[in-house]
Amino acid sequence: MEDEFYITPWEVRGEVDYNRLIKMFGVKVIDRSMIRLVKKVFGEVPLHIRRGVFYSHRDLDRVLKEYLDGKPFYLYTGRGPSGPMHLGHILPMIFTKYLQEKLDTLLLLQLTPDEKYMYHENMKKEEIFEYTIDNIKDILAIGFKPDKTILVDDFRHIDYLYQLAVSIARKVTFSTARATFGFTSETNIGLIFYMAIQAAPCFLGYIIDDAYANCLIPAAIDQDPYWRVTRDIAGKLGFPKPSQIHGKLLPGLEASGKMSTSDPETALYLSDKEEAVERKIKNAFTGGQPTAELQRKLGGNPDICTVFSYYAYIFEDKDEKLKERYEDCKTGRLLCGDCKAELISRINSFLIKHRENKKNIDNETIEEYMLDNRVDIGDLINNYDLLR
Amino acid sequence: MEDEFYITPWEVRGEVDYNRLIKMFGVKVIDRSMIRLVKKVFGEVPLHIRRGVFYSHRDLDRVLKEYLDGKPFYLYTGRGPSGPMHLGHILPMIFTKYLQEKLDTLLLLQLTPDEKYMYHENMKKEEIFEYTIDNIKDILAIGFKPDKTILVDDFRHIDYLYQLAVSIARKVTFSTARATFGFTSETNIGLIFYMAIQAAPCFLGYIIDDAYANCLIPAAIDQDPYWRVTRDIAGKLGFPKPSQIHGKLLPGLEASGKMSTSDPETALYLSDKEEAVERKIKNAFTGGQPTAELQRKLGGNPDICTVFSYYAYIFEDKDEKLKERYEDCKTGRLLCGDCKAELISRINSFLIKHRENKKNIDNETIEEYMLDNRVDIGDLINNYDLLR
Repeated sequence: MEDEFYITPWEVRGEVDYNRLIKMFGVKVIDRSMIRLVKKVFGEVPLHIRRGVFYSHRDLDRVLKEYLDGKPFYLYTGRGPSGPMHLGHILPMIFTKYLQEKLDTLLLLQLTPDEKYMYHENMKKEEIFEYTIDNIKDILAIGFKPDKTILVDDFRHIDYLYQLAVSIARKVTFSTARATFGFTSETNIGLIFYMAIQAAPCFLGYIIDDAYANCLIPAAIDQDPYWRVTRDIAGKLGFPKPSQIHGKLLPGLEASGKMSTSDPETALYLSDKEEAVERKIKNAFTGGQPTAELQRKLGGNPDICTVFSYYAYIFEDKDEKLKERYEDCKTGRLLCGDCKAELISRINSFLIKHRENKKNIDNETIEEYMLDNRVDIGDLINNYDLLR
Repeated sequence: MEDEFYITPWEVRGEVDYNRLIKMFGVKVIDRSMIRLVKKVFGEVPLHIRRGVFYSHRDLDRVLKEYLDGKPFYLYTGRGPSGPMHLGHILPMIFTKYLQEKLDTLLLLQLTPDEKYMYHENMKKEEIFEYTIDNIKDILAIGFKPDKTILVDDFRHIDYLYQLAVSIARKVTFSTARATFGFTSETNIGLIFYMAIQAAPCFLGYIIDDAYANCLIPAAIDQDPYWRVTRDIAGKLGFPKPSQIHGKLLPGLEASGKMSTSDPETALYLSDKEEAVERKIKNAFTGGQPTAELQRKLGGNPDICTVFSYYAYIFEDKDEKLKERYEDCKTGRLLCGDCKAELISRINSFLIKHRENKKNIDNETIEEYMLDNRVDIGDLINNYDLLR
């Protein structure tokens, strides 16, 4: 396996070294004192934080301290609808749902069909629209608080976003964007501008409700370049810097790196039927020995095992049970076949329930979450009052 | 006077060599055969064409021939509201009004506050909004056909424009944009993207009414870079190439180049009162001799005279009278003082009438011209149907 890796919001190659990312991106690891603060706010240490899945941050301390002082924050996360969603996409959503439930706060969920349409230059408009609707159904099936969750669709709601985006864009030079996102002369001018659209919801929450003092973004760490640039210019626009809590990418089943839509066998789609889940997990890379005999004798290595990571990231919410599984693998008491069979069963239960939830999300339900049906700021838009 | 000049949509320096521009931009001069075609369509040769003010084009022949075959075209022009409007800004509007009246066709009038807000990085939102409204009033005071004229405000109507702009932007590389507009590493990412917003109305007309077969843009030639890029990608999006008829820039009163808002004494603002007009014209650069005596003896040079050009461009609609003025100047019969006095009087009559018209344009009138009050394509927007 190569030591090198490559990570941008659009592509991840190689095995991501999350410790190195902390230095590369200039973010902070969630350390013990941070965990104490988290516990104070949530009354517990959230599963994904105590297991190191959400592991780094920017200004989470400021946001939580101000929260304890009575200054609420809103949540913002999103999804680029470039294809059907898989478990890797849903992981930050599950964590976000937890945060929203605990704190009963506003969540802005941005759909970025514009980004994906500009990145994939051969994508058709029917495809991007279909993916957006399908992705929205998957996201809402997770079960966010209906009265506190708002969908922001870049195409449908560009009027809400554009003046903020323009205000952001005029503070960001091509030189900065190139250095941050790795643009070249061949990058199209839409993708160069696009960061300003993804940055806009970092500030839109304050316009929707000025009671909010901060914006916290729970998202996978590959999105960090957006927030880095946004943080640099927030003060110039009179807004607080958006703060982040970064998640690791759910490992792919075979290759290293994150689950990839370009190789469907490495990812578990939310639409995958029982047989597909079984096949993919059976073929998954594990830390086990080549034979059952050797496994019993030498034990396996859960630390490098994708099957174990699925338990840790999503499919085992009891810490003791997870620890037991870890030890049983190490000592050879647990064989890969049994461990996989159990995971297959849990994933299928999850997906069957997910698809049942998804069936209940019809177009009428989606409409209820749409920004234009929730927030009327037409006068502010017409009077250019969203400019900064 | 320097031989060199510099021309972009945002800045003109030096004396523009319009013949060289034809080669630099790769446009076509309006030649005799073109003039015959124009006469066939309009029943006459329009004043600004026969005087060489609108002097070059792209595909005007195609558009006019198809028009004669019963395929109508719509008009598109615009205004960047970076300050109060002067006579130089109104010149292409006067020509556009003529075209619309003669052909009774749709006119899209784009206001580009986003462009100006991003170009002038210290401009305040109150300023840009105020200029936009004020400029709209000046434009509507010209007297376009109310039922065939639609105002497109980039900020207010971005939802109508964005999907087209995204479709355009994904076909334009940074490399192309840099070569066309002279961008540098320090250009902000908003201005880099902006060309796609200015290009969108080149296609929006077909969505408003699919009876139109072509789009003709009457505008000053400094805007040509936009259309060059747009024409290159129109076919890829399934649209006809937008065609252009290019105007020369109304000369500044003192310096060379176009009227400049950066030196208010070189421009005649539509808000200039009698005294200001008198002062500016009295100080204007002419082709006259230093003294009346020398003028009578040697005659003047109307070919380099800004005062004469104002007659030719706007303030003398009778060709014989203009010719008479030309000869009288050449032979020394006409002195600069008298020639200026007459121009001052004509400009002031024009401006007084203009401001009376402008007074009648209230917010209610403006609303009647606004795209969102004229065209409902909300479903197309929500379903991403404007993507190409």
